[in-house]
Amino acid sequence: MNYATSLPAPARIGDSLASVDTPALLLDLDAFEHNLDTLDAMLAGLPVRVRPHAKSHKCPEIARRQVARGAVGVCCQKVSEAEALVRGGIRDVLVVNEIVGVQKLARLSRLAGEARVGVAVDDPGNVDDLEHAAREARITLDVLVEVDVGLNRCGVEPGSPAVSLARRVADKGHLRFAGLQAYQGRAQHVRSFEDRRAAACAAAGKVRATLDLLAEEGLPAATVTGGGTGTFQFDAATGAYTEVQPGSYIFMDADYAQNLGEDGRPVQAFEQSLFVLTTVMSHPVPARASVDAGLKAHSVDSGMPVVHGVPGARFTRASDEHGVIELDVPGTLSLGQKIRLVPGHCDPTVNLHDWFVCFRGDRVEDIWPITARGAFY
Amino acid sequence: MNYATSLPAPARIGDSLASVDTPALLLDLDAFEHNLDTLDAMLAGLPVRVRPHAKSHKCPEIARRQVARGAVGVCCQKVSEAEALVRGGIRDVLVVNEIVGVQKLARLSRLAGEARVGVAVDDPGNVDDLEHAAREARITLDVLVEVDVGLNRCGVEPGSPAVSLARRVADKGHLRFAGLQAYQGRAQHVRSFEDRRAAACAAAGKVRATLDLLAEEGLPAATVTGGGTGTFQFDAATGAYTEVQPGSYIFMDADYAQNLGEDGRPVQAFEQSLFVLTTVMSHPVPARASVDAGLKAHSVDSGMPVVHGVPGARFTRASDEHGVIELDVPGTLSLGQKIRLVPGHCDPTVNLHDWFVCFRGDRVEDIWPITARGAFY
Repeated sequence: MNYATSLPAPARIGDSLASVDTPALLLDLDAFEHNLDTLDAMLAGLPVRVRPHAKSHKCPEIARRQVARGAVGVCCQKVSEAEALVRGGIRDVLVVNEIVGVQKLARLSRLAGEARVGVAVDDPGNVDDLEHAAREARITLDVLVEVDVGLNRCGVEPGSPAVSLARRVADKGHLRFAGLQAYQGRAQHVRSFEDRRAAACAAAGKVRATLDLLAEEGLPAATVTGGGTGTFQFDAATGAYTEVQPGSYIFMDADYAQNLGEDGRPVQAFEQSLFVLTTVMSHPVPARASVDAGLKAHSVDSGMPVVHGVPGARFTRASDEHGVIELDVPGTLSLGQKIRLVPGHCDPTVNLHDWFVCFRGDRVEDIWPITARGAFY
Repeated sequence: MNYATSLPAPARIGDSLASVDTPALLLDLDAFEHNLDTLDAMLAGLPVRVRPHAKSHKCPEIARRQVARGAVGVCCQKVSEAEALVRGGIRDVLVVNEIVGVQKLARLSRLAGEARVGVAVDDPGNVDDLEHAAREARITLDVLVEVDVGLNRCGVEPGSPAVSLARRVADKGHLRFAGLQAYQGRAQHVRSFEDRRAAACAAAGKVRATLDLLAEEGLPAATVTGGGTGTFQFDAATGAYTEVQPGSYIFMDADYAQNLGEDGRPVQAFEQSLFVLTTVMSHPVPARASVDAGLKAHSVDSGMPVVHGVPGARFTRASDEHGVIELDVPGTLSLGQKIRLVPGHCDPTVNLHDWFVCFRGDRVEDIWPITARGAFY
């Protein structure tokens, strides 16, 4: 199964940025590499490994660079993403999400014959189904019990419900109890530094209580994985986790840019590396222009994108194929001009594109296919 | 250039619906055909042709069915969409949007050598660029002047600004002034029947004033095109338009379902034919479940999807790969159950999928590739 893209790329290696067709997903390689370095620096000396979340980039080219810098592997949400990542050379992929359904479980188990693959569970019947699929495939599957540490989405309650499920996993012949998945997604975008830290610490407390019970029951959790770009440093410092799962840190977006640091100012540890390049394709009145990137080129679920580098230009409205930009200073844009947008939310924006146009300075240095784009099975 | 998909389809022809992998984009063929019939019936006797908007479906299989029923052709927003449609057998495609940039204009002009292709303009410099590209390609291009009839997005003002631009087009050797593009997008989702009609009539008034001036100047507008699913019947009745451009009518969505008819009740002319099939993949507490269709499987820009056929089940929260469903009646869902969502907004939802899984009753009858998925260049 090949999830390769078939849309032509909007640029060629060596092109100038000015000649890139639009809309295009740009990756600033200097900023991207800065972000990789910054993560390493922020975690130096802390007792965790990094397992970046590949749902953000869906791109083996990026996953390989993360692993080359010491990531233990990557995580993802879907079997088809895991397939694309393993095919792309990644040897350790955790699906940190529940997988339900005969077709998906069969594919997951087949994949576990090719690489180290694990999966999360929060239901006893699903454990039985996983055992069945693993036995059919004659493999042993790593299974993480997902604990709900405050997201109120998936996962069993911390403490004894988690221990019961871990026991059920451990009792199976083709499953290995590998530890806990504990992601507090709601904490990631809490704006205040202290509130964000408090949310992470509360989650870690639930994890620790569960780990204590597991130890009493003779069920050691080799892996405790969770955390995102907004909290990974707090999560790591708690000592409750063995791995953290930041995903957005390589890109950033307009939503994450609103998180505040200890000094009350926006956190600036990571640089914005991801942009949507767009063309002004209508400019009928001096105070308003339309660009060619609308809802099909970036996701507005977490707010409108921010116009980069054009003072007083505000992206106020998105329709399917248009973005409306209002100008506080008329005359700052011109028809045909290419400008950059900082997406409101990076992950679903990446999923709308087939290629990263990777640039350094003014030159397209590389083009990376987003091979797991649309891989939601 | 081939915009064919490379993701495997989530079903095979002949499968039962229950065996379709998820998330999947379902098309209920009975409802779809009902909608095609209903449009014909609603326009019977009115002095307009239909030019369905293909940005909604991005699928030549659907465009061919629309043309087979008498549509004059289709319209779309992007050159790459037009390319996919012409390659798929459509002989008359209007790009009812401004196209800016050397690469796009060259492709548009090449395409005009293969089929009847037209484009909209709202800028004199863009007219000059179109002329240059058409001359280079040795073709004559149909050009529509876009008039802003209330959307405040693209388009010149009605009246003399539109006439000036039409004159500029008509004076070019490789362009043909083909008429007006006049789409009042804001009117489509005005909830009240009378307010919606009033908005459509106001737009038509601006069109008529412009047509009168054009006639005085000896610039007859052969085509006047506009209107959407929310207003096309009003637009057609005004007599100002020669074509209407409904797109969503074949699918419908949760947003359109809130438009009211003359009796103050939701309009029910068109049936919901488009669904996202999704699996309950976590159900940790009786009042809450998660499904495997989040922001990457349906678009929430116009509101959350509606759960179809499960009383008291409300889709309350979408994250990248999850939808959270709250249950007024605990126990109405079970793990592994497949349910249908009515998307909040059909067009950007379709653009997230590579295949329509077309069903009738309980059986998959056909699978249509969404060949212009992601074609936003």
